[in-house]
Amino acid sequence: MRSLPDHALATGLDLARDLFERLRAASLDPPGVTRASYGAGERAAHAIVADAARGLGLEVSADAIGTLHMRLPGRDRAMPAVAMGSHLDSVPHGGNFDGAAGVVLGLAVAAALRAGGLAPRRDLLVLGIRAEEMCWFPAHYLGSRALFGLLPREAPDMLRRADTGRTLAEHMVDEGFDPAPIREGRALLDPDSLACFIEPHIEQGPVLVEEALPIAIVSGIRGSLRYPRAVAHGAHAHAGAVPRTHRRDAAMAAVMLLAALDARWAMLEDGGADLVCTTGILATDPEHHAPTKVPGTLRFSLDIRSEDAALLAELDRWLALEALRIGGARGVAFDLGPPTHAAPAPMDEALRALLMRAAGTAGVPVREMASGAGHDCATFAGLGVPSAMLFLRNANGSHNPEEALDMADVGAALAVLAPTVASLLD
Amino acid sequence: MRSLPDHALATGLDLARDLFERLRAASLDPPGVTRASYGAGERAAHAIVADAARGLGLEVSADAIGTLHMRLPGRDRAMPAVAMGSHLDSVPHGGNFDGAAGVVLGLAVAAALRAGGLAPRRDLLVLGIRAEEMCWFPAHYLGSRALFGLLPREAPDMLRRADTGRTLAEHMVDEGFDPAPIREGRALLDPDSLACFIEPHIEQGPVLVEEALPIAIVSGIRGSLRYPRAVAHGAHAHAGAVPRTHRRDAAMAAVMLLAALDARWAMLEDGGADLVCTTGILATDPEHHAPTKVPGTLRFSLDIRSEDAALLAELDRWLALEALRIGGARGVAFDLGPPTHAAPAPMDEALRALLMRAAGTAGVPVREMASGAGHDCATFAGLGVPSAMLFLRNANGSHNPEEALDMADVGAALAVLAPTVASLLD
Repeated sequence: MRSLPDHALATGLDLARDLFERLRAASLDPPGVTRASYGAGERAAHAIVADAARGLGLEVSADAIGTLHMRLPGRDRAMPAVAMGSHLDSVPHGGNFDGAAGVVLGLAVAAALRAGGLAPRRDLLVLGIRAEEMCWFPAHYLGSRALFGLLPREAPDMLRRADTGRTLAEHMVDEGFDPAPIREGRALLDPDSLACFIEPHIEQGPVLVEEALPIAIVSGIRGSLRYPRAVAHGAHAHAGAVPRTHRRDAAMAAVMLLAALDARWAMLEDGGADLVCTTGILATDPEHHAPTKVPGTLRFSLDIRSEDAALLAELDRWLALEALRIGGARGVAFDLGPPTHAAPAPMDEALRALLMRAAGTAGVPVREMASGAGHDCATFAGLGVPSAMLFLRNANGSHNPEEALDMADVGAALAVLAPTVASLLD
Repeated sequence: MRSLPDHALATGLDLARDLFERLRAASLDPPGVTRASYGAGERAAHAIVADAARGLGLEVSADAIGTLHMRLPGRDRAMPAVAMGSHLDSVPHGGNFDGAAGVVLGLAVAAALRAGGLAPRRDLLVLGIRAEEMCWFPAHYLGSRALFGLLPREAPDMLRRADTGRTLAEHMVDEGFDPAPIREGRALLDPDSLACFIEPHIEQGPVLVEEALPIAIVSGIRGSLRYPRAVAHGAHAHAGAVPRTHRRDAAMAAVMLLAALDARWAMLEDGGADLVCTTGILATDPEHHAPTKVPGTLRFSLDIRSEDAALLAELDRWLALEALRIGGARGVAFDLGPPTHAAPAPMDEALRALLMRAAGTAGVPVREMASGAGHDCATFAGLGVPSAMLFLRNANGSHNPEEALDMADVGAALAVLAPTVASLLD
């Protein structure tokens, strides 16, 4: 493991602090910041980051779709590069750190390496990725998939931004970019040119705050099994006049199915499985429901996530059988509706081990944890690029103005990332 | 038990068939019939019924609030009368039988007695009650409570009809009636002038259809404990990033409470308790819910009914404790909101026995059952008037155009009611 002098890490941290302040000021939209995908706030963020990269002597370019490529050149330009980065867009009135932290830490590592006087063998490539927040264009990892030619070819003309109703292609052209590579399925970066990808990101849950840990190494990005539009079909009936055995109560059948899922979740988790289950929508029909009416229909959603693809498949089979069993017993037909599946993205074992070792060396307390949310890193992992994520402690969740990232924790992340990257670059 | 010749019962049944047809024709509003409280359809129904009563030689009068009093005079006018009847309003686009069946059967009994040549000692009083359906004016048993001076004095000027927004007083005056007795809390009928009250009514549930029985004798009218506006307060969170133990999931806490209530219901019912429990409303917040968000709030309703007032009180205490236990374990605060209570109305033992005996004599198969819905009969029972209800088999539930009452079952009811009333009148 390479080590870096304290003043080098301090230089990196100063840059990070300065960049976060400039990013906030440039995209302020009280409460919070707004950096729409291919919009003004994202444009301002890219300009600030590019300017800082040039100041560090990095080679800076934007590709045809607007991805920012910032290279600290190595001694051997032919070798696969070590890549870092994340996205620079935000949700409307969001926080300053979701996404931006990954790009800022990439530049902070570059600054630390430079200040430490290192002359690495490989290139360090810091990526400022476009359009990750699905609230603007309804596609997962839009920017990183477009970067590798993985977006459906019709995407530029089919996807419309939620706030304007205009197409991705129109917004790209407005910003001076070109939708042609997406329409042609053409990659703008060769995955074989990357030795690995590391994405730092704020934690979007409360675990690190509650456990008083500054950072975590991500074990894997959970895959998901989702039934967003499930319905229980029973029969409306009089709340007073219809006895228990004659009811076909859609709400109670769904309650039983969800209670069974909760019990199974608890059992599997006790056995060490990685799993989260959410029913975000649970709704009797507002046109017809009343306190004195046994509900005939109930709409609900299921979102089940795990690092373990086999567990998701097993739960899917269990759900179908349980819905039949409970539905049969209660005269209710469950229609779970069309599912969506996202495959889990395991993080690279060797990179995880290297990051854990670096944390030990730097004396930074750390744990491993799964990422429940999807991240651009899943695109890189899906292409076979050895990938890792580092989570930073963050209070109050993400996608809201109250995101809170302590600069001391940025320092801790830097103290782990800079020597790790220095070693990888050698 | 007095008996009646077959031709007398046939005369009563012919009248009933004819009245149902005339009532339907006069209030047709496809699909179904509409007889708004103090509206045109109710007015037409009162006119048809009054006309038929006059044809039978009954003394007919409407009181100040529009209740129709139809008396078959007895030999001793000073003795308390035997009363029958029900309401003549319906829900919008409702069925032809809910309410009307009780008035029609009252007149059918009078016709049968007359055709049988009986000269009873007491008066038979058939009542056409106003305004029972709560969908028009939001008050329980409006017409029967007003009849006995039991309505709040402000009711005529506070209650507004759902379809017009105009007050009860305005609608009463439109129909030629006078809200003054209600404003003065003045009874228009002395409960001491009644020996008993019998209300025939269609069953609003499916039990008689499924058990192939034409009629039931009601054991009691269930009381209710209702929490129409309960809320579970937890905290919104990211569906992927927040682990099980850190969640404050309002939906899952409510699911657990409702599953516990369902289990308790099943246990109590297995032990012989009379109980029905309904959650008619179950709703995450449509402004904020999403499949990928742990819901922070959930609105729900509880409607619990039983003939047993002590059981309702016990369940109320159990609910409060269970909400604390489950809420505490899951970081969710339950606010059950303001409850409403309706006391159970037990039916008179002697009247029930008399009706059962008459069914046996007439060879009409019968069972006892609780009434889950409230009825005008509860007003009479609450005043200490010995009261009973007879349910008639009815397919497809009530309050909808598909109410289905077979005239053969009206005949069976008449074969039980006519000799019972004849005996009571002696």
